[in-house]
Amino acid sequence: MSAGKKLQLPIALDAMGGDNAPACVLRGAAMALVRHPGIRFLLYGNRYILEPLLIELPQLKAASEIVHTEIVIAGDDKPSVAVRRGRNSSMWMSIESVRDNRCCAIVSAGNTGALMAMSKLILRTLPGISRPAIAALFPTLRGECVMLDLGANVESDAKDLYRFAIMGDAFARAVLGLSRPKIGLLNVGSEELKGRDEVKEAYQVIKNSGRALNFHGFIEGNDIAEGTVDVVVTDGFTGNVALKTAEGAARLIRTYLKDAFNSSPFSKTGAVLAAGALKVVKDKLDDRKRNGAMFLGLNGIAVKSHGGADAFSFCNAISVAVELVVHDINTRITQEINLSVEATPAGETA
Amino acid sequence: MSAGKKLQLPIALDAMGGDNAPACVLRGAAMALVRHPGIRFLLYGNRYILEPLLIELPQLKAASEIVHTEIVIAGDDKPSVAVRRGRNSSMWMSIESVRDNRCCAIVSAGNTGALMAMSKLILRTLPGISRPAIAALFPTLRGECVMLDLGANVESDAKDLYRFAIMGDAFARAVLGLSRPKIGLLNVGSEELKGRDEVKEAYQVIKNSGRALNFHGFIEGNDIAEGTVDVVVTDGFTGNVALKTAEGAARLIRTYLKDAFNSSPFSKTGAVLAAGALKVVKDKLDDRKRNGAMFLGLNGIAVKSHGGADAFSFCNAISVAVELVVHDINTRITQEINLSVEATPAGETA
Repeated sequence: MSAGKKLQLPIALDAMGGDNAPACVLRGAAMALVRHPGIRFLLYGNRYILEPLLIELPQLKAASEIVHTEIVIAGDDKPSVAVRRGRNSSMWMSIESVRDNRCCAIVSAGNTGALMAMSKLILRTLPGISRPAIAALFPTLRGECVMLDLGANVESDAKDLYRFAIMGDAFARAVLGLSRPKIGLLNVGSEELKGRDEVKEAYQVIKNSGRALNFHGFIEGNDIAEGTVDVVVTDGFTGNVALKTAEGAARLIRTYLKDAFNSSPFSKTGAVLAAGALKVVKDKLDDRKRNGAMFLGLNGIAVKSHGGADAFSFCNAISVAVELVVHDINTRITQEINLSVEATPAGETA
Repeated sequence: MSAGKKLQLPIALDAMGGDNAPACVLRGAAMALVRHPGIRFLLYGNRYILEPLLIELPQLKAASEIVHTEIVIAGDDKPSVAVRRGRNSSMWMSIESVRDNRCCAIVSAGNTGALMAMSKLILRTLPGISRPAIAALFPTLRGECVMLDLGANVESDAKDLYRFAIMGDAFARAVLGLSRPKIGLLNVGSEELKGRDEVKEAYQVIKNSGRALNFHGFIEGNDIAEGTVDVVVTDGFTGNVALKTAEGAARLIRTYLKDAFNSSPFSKTGAVLAAGALKVVKDKLDDRKRNGAMFLGLNGIAVKSHGGADAFSFCNAISVAVELVVHDINTRITQEINLSVEATPAGETA
């Protein structure tokens, strides 16, 4: 173990969270180590389960330290129960390591509700942020866009949406490497008159914020995949439904295609000939590449991996955490929030 | 013209509404006439434009009557302006023909906002319905489902959502021919505790309604295309965003596939061999087949065709109107609403 070494970029992993934990967590961490040689891991979980697995992964073993706990939050634990009874769990302890500055970020594939509740409780929100948001990437015709909130809240007012715009801007700069991400506000029509009151009000707040946000204005659902903007701002209810509806539609089309290619000898041969090209499509739509949703607005970096993540997928969630640490996303968010408060005297945002 | 004949199932067409009007409206009507020999049309529009076109469509000409007007609502007219100034427009007059019992239904490919505003004003809502809803079909792994509201309202309370469930049930019986459609309430989680207050309250109202609704409970976005339920109930903001996001995702995948098949001689040959199978997929995803969204909850049947509809697509919108007339959807909705009011004494729905 590397307990005595100086850690350059220590990342906390909830080694026991997720459907394929701890095996895929460890293998994903080993892959991430190759991709980001400067990182180190604090592995929170059961030493007696983790140690035998690490024998197969000597490089990871050399770059990791196990923090032992036998308590694991189950996928179906209610967040309220998890928070009350899970104080010594791998999830709780790994989040605490970020609060206590032992780690720069925490990554977990465990129970989303519990992770959100614990992260809010332990890390608290950044100054000026009342509601955190979940942000993740979505494929578009032009590449990828950031979408938030994906379900941290079920309702958001105009000021929340404005803060989501600032946080999404910072996320897109860090993870997509954009210098001036274009921000869109999700609505049911692109005219200024349509839509919910809070969305119309948010339009005015963002437009008049005086901050250097590259605000495109309203967008509609079809603009997400179109790539009209780099950051899609919406409330957590709408964002969650939109994301899952799109995932469902993509699965529907994949199933149609699979059935079609299997329907005759001709189509089977066609599929073989087009296999290389179809693989490109499959890769582009591969959700594993975009694994890693951040809980934005907390005083610490917490990244949620998909619960069913395999090693490659979990490795990508770690990469998201690394990018956010390297780009110091929370400093940027805090600065922007502070500046926007200074720049908008009462009344100007109305 | 057939002005003197007895009309069996007279349908009013806003012949001037839509990007491809009046040509595609007329050709779609001619196709619908073959499919539903019992129908007749009242064509609202400019006689001097329509008459020359009807020369090419003798069967349609024999089954139609033109009601002349030179006023057309433009696609970008604001609904409020259209309502104020469009009293003699083809859209307004065709809706009036339903109110005055000269026609059983009206179909228009014109400006959605104007059509909704005029329909509400002219037809009024059914007794017991405060907010109409837009309902349409969505493809699923098991066939098709009905989704509503798709944008008639931006907010809905629990009772609105309950009435949407009743209206969606009636729509699914009429258009999908189901005897006991399964109803789902769109939410961000399938547990009873999650989600927005109005959605949680609607769950209880529907569950305790005492009506014979086949209520599945909460569903999530991915359940829509999965075909988990036959009727997806949601507010107009969420429904509109979900529908358009899914359309955008489908377009993204189609573009990826097209690019992939064009990427090499192998993949081009593969596409040729699999052409028959790919056509099946294309047909399944063909939005034109599902054209025709109904404004449910109004005292008359008003069907909105996609603005860019071609003749086949417009013909399908007419078919939706015919099914709704034949199944007498509004009588069913009114009965169910009345029965549900009787069946739920104060307090029981809380």
